[in-house]
Amino acid sequence: MSETAAKLPPESGAAVMELKAGSLEDRIARLEQQLQGLERRAVSNRATIVVFSGDLDKVLAGLVIATGAAAMGLEVSMFHTFWGLSALRKQRKVRGKNLLEQAMNVMTPAGLGSLTPSKLSFAGAGAAILRKMMKDKGVQSPEELFALARELGVKVLACEMSMDVMGIHRDELIDGVEVAGVAAYLGDAADSKVTLFI
Amino acid sequence: MSETAAKLPPESGAAVMELKAGSLEDRIARLEQQLQGLERRAVSNRATIVVFSGDLDKVLAGLVIATGAAAMGLEVSMFHTFWGLSALRKQRKVRGKNLLEQAMNVMTPAGLGSLTPSKLSFAGAGAAILRKMMKDKGVQSPEELFALARELGVKVLACEMSMDVMGIHRDELIDGVEVAGVAAYLGDAADSKVTLFI
Amino acid sequence: MSETAAKLPPESGAAVMELKAGSLEDRIARLEQQLQGLERRAVSNRATIVVFSGDLDKVLAGLVIATGAAAMGLEVSMFHTFWGLSALRKQRKVRGKNLLEQAMNVMTPAGLGSLTPSKLSFAGAGAAILRKMMKDKGVQSPEELFALARELGVKVLACEMSMDVMGIHRDELIDGVEVAGVAAYLGDAADSKVTLFI
Repeated sequence: MSETAAKLPPESGAAVMELKAGSLEDRIARLEQQLQGLERRAVSNRATIVVFSGDLDKVLAGLVIATGAAAMGLEVSMFHTFWGLSALRKQRKVRGKNLLEQAMNVMTPAGLGSLTPSKLSFAGAGAAILRKMMKDKGVQSPEELFALARELGVKVLACEMSMDVMGIHRDELIDGVEVAGVAAYLGDAADSKVTLFI
Repeated sequence: MSETAAKLPPESGAAVMELKAGSLEDRIARLEQQLQGLERRAVSNRATIVVFSGDLDKVLAGLVIATGAAAMGLEVSMFHTFWGLSALRKQRKVRGKNLLEQAMNVMTPAGLGSLTPSKLSFAGAGAAILRKMMKDKGVQSPEELFALARELGVKVLACEMSMDVMGIHRDELIDGVEVAGVAAYLGDAADSKVTLFI
Repeated sequence: MSETAAKLPPESGAAVMELKAGSLEDRIARLEQQLQGLERRAVSNRATIVVFSGDLDKVLAGLVIATGAAAMGLEVSMFHTFWGLSALRKQRKVRGKNLLEQAMNVMTPAGLGSLTPSKLSFAGAGAAILRKMMKDKGVQSPEELFALARELGVKVLACEMSMDVMGIHRDELIDGVEVAGVAAYLGDAADSKVTLFI
């Protein structure tokens, strides 16, 4: 380009500029187009976690990651589904449920306080032991971590389809939980830098 | 810049332009370079799921996410490995297998129809109960969800190394499954907005 | 713009250029701004894996993915937490531990060599059988895969909080492991194309 410009007589500077600007404009137009394409291929500063498990240790891991991410400024969503719904229950309810739902209700834990770890049940004492070990080391309890998550603005979603299948009613869940479908989860997940299934 | 231009005699307009265009060109060149770098740091509208588990509840979660994502327009790959291969088996085969392979063959489920949930076995009735609870609420069966996934273009991959280790032959898998290595999985995963290990 | 240009006499070409360049400059400025925004929404050629599980089969899956990713040129971090710390232990130590820590120490595996699979324990022979099946097919052992991961530059992190809670001391871990907090994990994860929780 500069060579061509050098060969031209000085008075045609404006014409050279026209050419140059034209080519610059082409490059800008191309950049604009590429950028538009890239916008669709970018994600946000966001972490989205499926909490499928209802095991105390796994729910804890989810809470530690969620609160850590929120503290670092990421927007965080936790989508509780299947056994993970147990962590969001505040009460057992039997009325208005069919037999299978009642059985499911009784056989699954209701609330963080009834979750047990996936390993080392220690004849049922596993949760108490894990909690004691955490307390001994000054680590926040599951309940404190959950409260912290809420404070930090972590969005807590309960999977509508799982609730329906397991017969868990909205009034059995703790307050502030949003009931949502898989599409809501995927909307967040497809805009996230971190996506996990726990 | 416009102030400088105003002070210059009219005949030097072309020279000013040259300068300006030069600086614009520099900025465009820098943009082009940055954009090229960003292209390598972008991902596609894609979800890639490792199905490691052969538990009915987890495979179901994978199918619900996969079909939901495909319905939303994401390209979806499911990479079945280890126990997750069970979901893709259509038959048991003993011939041409060594003793360990035969034992593995007999002791792992063959097909969606033989998967059991990870919790609440209900003395072996767990799968039947989960299926009934899903049907009662009008949720599609695992088989229907899998068929829907295929219809929506979800790519189903079977992990070659796991097949080899477990002694599962290609003709034991349902049709339309692609046998692939971890590199194929990673190729998809490293171009995905959503990556999960189930 | 072109209309305005058409009305101007030919000698004012430089002025037209001024206008045009001005508009080009605006577009470039806009592009620069958008690009800066996109930089924050991009990730790197990186895979970050939480190894929460201490099951041999799951740890193996993590190692296969990690080495595969590293071989493909991705930067890989493995963040071992909870039961996943077992894979990084080189010895059992009882001294300087309280009773619960000693119990935890004894009841959890120490090192890749003591991990057992999540399914098919075969009355305790599960690990030996899985290892034999892998060897029969020429697949690298867990120990070889781990060594390969290190050779390929995979970063191996041990979760500080879990170590603290479970009473695992730094000198119980194999060499070359970095003890790190959840913030270090999240720093890597939020810059990754592939994020998994195993």
